[in-house]
Amino acid sequence: MNMVGKLISLEGIEGAGKSTLASALEAALRARGLPVLLTREPGGTPLAEQLRTVVLARGPERISAEAETLLMFAARAIHVENLIRPALAAGTWVICDRYTDATRAYQGAGRGVDGELIERLAQAVHADLWPQRTLVLDLPVELGLARARARRGPGDRFEDEQRRFFERVSARYRELAANEPERIRLIEASGTPENTLERSLAALSDVLPAARTALG
Amino acid sequence: MNMVGKLISLEGIEGAGKSTLASALEAALRARGLPVLLTREPGGTPLAEQLRTVVLARGPERISAEAETLLMFAARAIHVENLIRPALAAGTWVICDRYTDATRAYQGAGRGVDGELIERLAQAVHADLWPQRTLVLDLPVELGLARARARRGPGDRFEDEQRRFFERVSARYRELAANEPERIRLIEASGTPENTLERSLAALSDVLPAARTALG
Repeated sequence: MNMVGKLISLEGIEGAGKSTLASALEAALRARGLPVLLTREPGGTPLAEQLRTVVLARGPERISAEAETLLMFAARAIHVENLIRPALAAGTWVICDRYTDATRAYQGAGRGVDGELIERLAQAVHADLWPQRTLVLDLPVELGLARARARRGPGDRFEDEQRRFFERVSARYRELAANEPERIRLIEASGTPENTLERSLAALSDVLPAARTALG
Repeated sequence: MNMVGKLISLEGIEGAGKSTLASALEAALRARGLPVLLTREPGGTPLAEQLRTVVLARGPERISAEAETLLMFAARAIHVENLIRPALAAGTWVICDRYTDATRAYQGAGRGVDGELIERLAQAVHADLWPQRTLVLDLPVELGLARARARRGPGDRFEDEQRRFFERVSARYRELAANEPERIRLIEASGTPENTLERSLAALSDVLPAARTALG
């Protein structure tokens, strides 16, 4: 393993505060002198972003849960190969807004795609490339949806989905955290962005190098 | 099963004459009074055509064989759900330029993607929707490549691939025909377009209704 950079993924339902945390975390890592790449899924490269527009399309065509899952993993394969792996190999830390846990939660628990198929695809697409740490921003679904609505009104296809959908997604995220407690940490996210950042940095303390002192 | 229309797929390597045959076959079916939809993969619907542009992209980004396979099946899922199934249900005959056998041959034999993964995806994406008949246009690889070069010069990413690649693809098509002789028929395609059409109609005689007579 020549990898020096580490991969950190952020997960959570709509309105959990992932984007705000991602930027704050990027700044905090840079303040420690680390080279950081902030990216997102689906997307992150020009071709993968093209796939994102297909996945989020609100046109007349139906996209089955299985088709959506394949698009997510196709975009992930392109993202991993062309951006994430090269960045990690070059010593860059990568903060990724959603990764395979999102597919497990959204397409798996949310839309009912066979979990075995999802694991098979994860193996085919990125094998052993899992985040060193995954932060799941956890908050009541009602609060997340209220925040998301306040922010942007009626949203894309996913945000039109029902509350029960997000309850299933949220429950799956908690299950994943329970199953992989070393990698996946639940972060209470119903407070302020500052609270969430503080809790997140605490949950990353063992993977981050120590903060530079005034002398550093 | 309320399906009245039948699905016919056309397969073969570059330069085999699929597109020419597709149009001729469409005309022959219409001449029999059948409603016909001529379509292609990857593509066939606006969203699936967007995926086609990603698959055939010649930009700097690498697309692994696995990512390509997922894109092919994602496009197929969209195509089947939004176009092929509704057309068949409405009694339309569908002629499809490439289908899952192409993924088996190109991504499987050509690029080395695990055959078990391909079958798993076929099951997830279209289950039992296989063509009533598949015509594989068969000709020496050298002749196909010479025709393709004459037609359009240096082509897309696939056509840049090597002769050995097409030998593997061609061999897999022959294997598939040997394994499923009822559905898949090899059509000798090194002659004229008229020869190929005649052989194709003969290979479809048991699925097509009889040609209308002058009295029809």
